[in-house]
Amino acid sequence: MGVEIERKFLVDQKAWEKLEKPEGLHYQQGYIPSDDNCTVRVRIAGVHGYITLKGRTKGISRSEFEYEIPLADAKAMLDQFTQNGTEKIRYKFPAGNRVWEVDEFLGPNKGLVVAEIELEDEHEVFEKPTWITDEVTDEMRYANSNLAVRPFLEW
Amino acid sequence: MGVEIERKFLVDQKAWEKLEKPEGLHYQQGYIPSDDNCTVRVRIAGVHGYITLKGRTKGISRSEFEYEIPLADAKAMLDQFTQNGTEKIRYKFPAGNRVWEVDEFLGPNKGLVVAEIELEDEHEVFEKPTWITDEVTDEMRYANSNLAVRPFLEW
Repeated sequence: MGVEIERKFLVDQKAWEKLEKPEGLHYQQGYIPSDDNCTVRVRIAGVHGYITLKGRTKGISRSEFEYEIPLADAKAMLDQFTQNGTEKIRYKFPAGNRVWEVDEFLGPNKGLVVAEIELEDEHEVFEKPTWITDEVTDEMRYANSNLAVRPFLEW
Repeated sequence: MGVEIERKFLVDQKAWEKLEKPEGLHYQQGYIPSDDNCTVRVRIAGVHGYITLKGRTKGISRSEFEYEIPLADAKAMLDQFTQNGTEKIRYKFPAGNRVWEVDEFLGPNKGLVVAEIELEDEHEVFEKPTWITDEVTDEMRYANSNLAVRPFLEW
């Protein structure tokens, strides 16, 4: 178990296109319909499968439980238990002792690029690369579970 | 991943009380509210934690994905994510190359004793101990997820 403290920002499209990027990892994920108290996510990241349970967001903190599972299980669960999902390429950019995780969405969320940074505490100061723009931490429509149901291209 | 083929029977109360039993294991479990396609169960069995996802029942078969998780995670999830649950003592009785699992329910399901046997295929023939009575495989009110919401003592 962990408590996740994350801040989320939009990425400038033009700067992003020109940026030299590390190799990205393909993510496919879906959500098992559940109540508001808990999000149940099945994810395939490259050749690894995961199941993740996340609690309700409190401020910018959220409890999170993640377990690696066999890839075949993740595929079967995505197929049998989830209806909507998101697909994206994730890139990692180290920044000091933190890492920016940048998600370039595909499919019905194509055109959306979002950067996240995980912090030790809510008031931690951190450096922002020049390609980072508006903060959207509190905008629920950018939550992956919401993007799965109401994708960016339909906004 | 596995496909679970189980048959479920009631246990004769009087015979059960007189029966010489092996040592039982204490189970506490709760359900994360989800849609009908998938049941998400958090279980503590003795000192071990588990998360289990089960698909919709088709006949007497059901797909099942179970993972052991840290006990502290299971406790935190039962606390944060589940509202109703069941508590029971499980006893195991070997029978040929099969095992009868007998659940003696506690709390709001006290008085209910149910025996289950897991089979290789739907038509397998198996021996029934004398303390086994009516089959309730298809009676959904005996599903643990339903007993959590509408317990035996309220029937």
